[in-house]
Amino acid sequence: MPTTQAYAAPSAKAALGPFSLERRAPRAQDVLIDILYCGVCHSDIHQARDEWGGAVFPMVPGHEIVGKVSQVGSAVTAFKVGDSVGVGCFVNSCRECPACVAGEEQYCEQGMVSTYNGRERDGTPTYGGYSTSITVDAKYVLRIPEGLPLDRAAPLLCAGITTYSPLHHYGLKAGQKLAVVGLGGLGHMGVKLGKAMGAEVTVLSTSPSKRDDALALGATHFAATSDKQTFKKLANQFDFILDTVSAPHDYNAYLGLLKLDGTMILVGVPETPTPLAAFPLVMKRRKLGGSLIGGIRETQEMLDFCAKHNVASDVEVIPIQKINEAYERMLKGDVRYRFVIDTASLRTK
Amino acid sequence: MPTTQAYAAPSAKAALGPFSLERRAPRAQDVLIDILYCGVCHSDIHQARDEWGGAVFPMVPGHEIVGKVSQVGSAVTAFKVGDSVGVGCFVNSCRECPACVAGEEQYCEQGMVSTYNGRERDGTPTYGGYSTSITVDAKYVLRIPEGLPLDRAAPLLCAGITTYSPLHHYGLKAGQKLAVVGLGGLGHMGVKLGKAMGAEVTVLSTSPSKRDDALALGATHFAATSDKQTFKKLANQFDFILDTVSAPHDYNAYLGLLKLDGTMILVGVPETPTPLAAFPLVMKRRKLGGSLIGGIRETQEMLDFCAKHNVASDVEVIPIQKINEAYERMLKGDVRYRFVIDTASLRTK
Repeated sequence: MPTTQAYAAPSAKAALGPFSLERRAPRAQDVLIDILYCGVCHSDIHQARDEWGGAVFPMVPGHEIVGKVSQVGSAVTAFKVGDSVGVGCFVNSCRECPACVAGEEQYCEQGMVSTYNGRERDGTPTYGGYSTSITVDAKYVLRIPEGLPLDRAAPLLCAGITTYSPLHHYGLKAGQKLAVVGLGGLGHMGVKLGKAMGAEVTVLSTSPSKRDDALALGATHFAATSDKQTFKKLANQFDFILDTVSAPHDYNAYLGLLKLDGTMILVGVPETPTPLAAFPLVMKRRKLGGSLIGGIRETQEMLDFCAKHNVASDVEVIPIQKINEAYERMLKGDVRYRFVIDTASLRTK
Repeated sequence: MPTTQAYAAPSAKAALGPFSLERRAPRAQDVLIDILYCGVCHSDIHQARDEWGGAVFPMVPGHEIVGKVSQVGSAVTAFKVGDSVGVGCFVNSCRECPACVAGEEQYCEQGMVSTYNGRERDGTPTYGGYSTSITVDAKYVLRIPEGLPLDRAAPLLCAGITTYSPLHHYGLKAGQKLAVVGLGGLGHMGVKLGKAMGAEVTVLSTSPSKRDDALALGATHFAATSDKQTFKKLANQFDFILDTVSAPHDYNAYLGLLKLDGTMILVGVPETPTPLAAFPLVMKRRKLGGSLIGGIRETQEMLDFCAKHNVASDVEVIPIQKINEAYERMLKGDVRYRFVIDTASLRTK
């Protein structure tokens, strides 16, 4: 039973602090991973503060995990000790439903087993990547390809796949026009990935101050959504809109920016419903769709794609001791564009 | 200048009554059509009462027109005198924009020329099918195939294509599960067409009294949406939902009935926006799309499909003198499932 040092939220109202837990000894199909880096996702805050309900405390957040294999079970052939690997938002699923069989485990009909704040299929609580090690079934472990810097690869396991999967699934093609709404952790990956797929990318943001960053990240155009003229000027322009914003906003205005047969994809979930007019959908046969992270096969494909195209997240590496401060900065949008915990800070007291 | 007898709404507040107008003499590309039947679409009421704004009065409604060619212009080769033909919701478009070039004139970037309550590209008002004849450019005229009864074919020109086009465009396949929401003029065609395409059709209606009709029209299942259990029992069941309802209703509840990757298609446009939650879209990668009638090529394809599969509208044929009463009955849902005007009633005084 390997002991791991971690940071946990003891309850919804308390700051995160030191915690230790036992990981399971690797079974035949498992790998034990020494965690090196873990990205900090906005959903970590929502869950650590129980804003979505049903939280399991103490909670060790973190589902953007990168590390090295330190031990492999007897039946594991895909990985060996020393391999660079990653773990994303889930660590198991039913493996039998049509979604699992299709390799889209994120839509498992029994519910995927979340990397943290969930329960294994035997009921054991799961603890995430703000920790020094994790034991995971090899089927749910990703290979980090050569050439990807490990710290900058960590956010690909959630922010990367959440934006890659819909662009890939809904069929973004080279030369098409893509608008990315919101330039945060998800949005900045959407820009990089859309650009790498050959699209002409426009960033739509409430903050005119993000123009330079947007262009530096690979966008060809930037438009401030605080300027109402933007919605007139850019009407009927885009093949796809990737909407990464979780705060309430006017879907109808954005739908008007799509061409005939264009698609707007939601990856953010505002807390309250948004008034939707049928008119913009009907008059130009537009579509509004959603997308949830991605399956294991597609996540591996995304990592390989990123290595090939030199795509990685823009990160600010922090010691775990700064995690509570990092949460506060994230709530103010003060991060470009992802905090990543260096878990060396958990090993040295 | 052929004179045609018609019924017109003189203003938004007045009942329809007798009217006469001059149709243009056929130009080289035109056909002159003796109208035999014209379906009565719910949008006729909205427009005759100026509920959508911008109405042109006097207004001769009607865009589900079937008749016989009585004269052809010198350059017309596709039609000859005596042919059975139809005219749908539009009689012209720019012919140059990408949508027109693609044969999807309903999405013309310059705006299609509506069969009535619109203006020709030279500014002349258009008058619809509640009349004894119409002159139309042959490019916008449909051929009614042998074997389709002309009165029951008339509603295919709007209700038929409005439901055929999305099922065809969004890719309904034989063996898939289709739910049709609402069993009115559009819905009853959705059931028939979905069935003819090989889908297993379920009708979802607020009125339990429509069960027998739904099954008689070809549905395999019926569920009353007034029963809240319906939304639990049928969760995650459907590949497609064709939503024909124009009254406000809860899109989120219906989206929950779709499988992973399922699509709900709106062909009705409620007057007010509907609160939409992102959650049902994101968690099962569902799509919400719209669709607007269909192009000329697809409308011809639909008519040929209907002839091949013995599909036609269920109609109640009325003389024009009953049109105001018919409107009142339609507003109460008292029609199974489409009124069709026999224009012989306009010829005999």
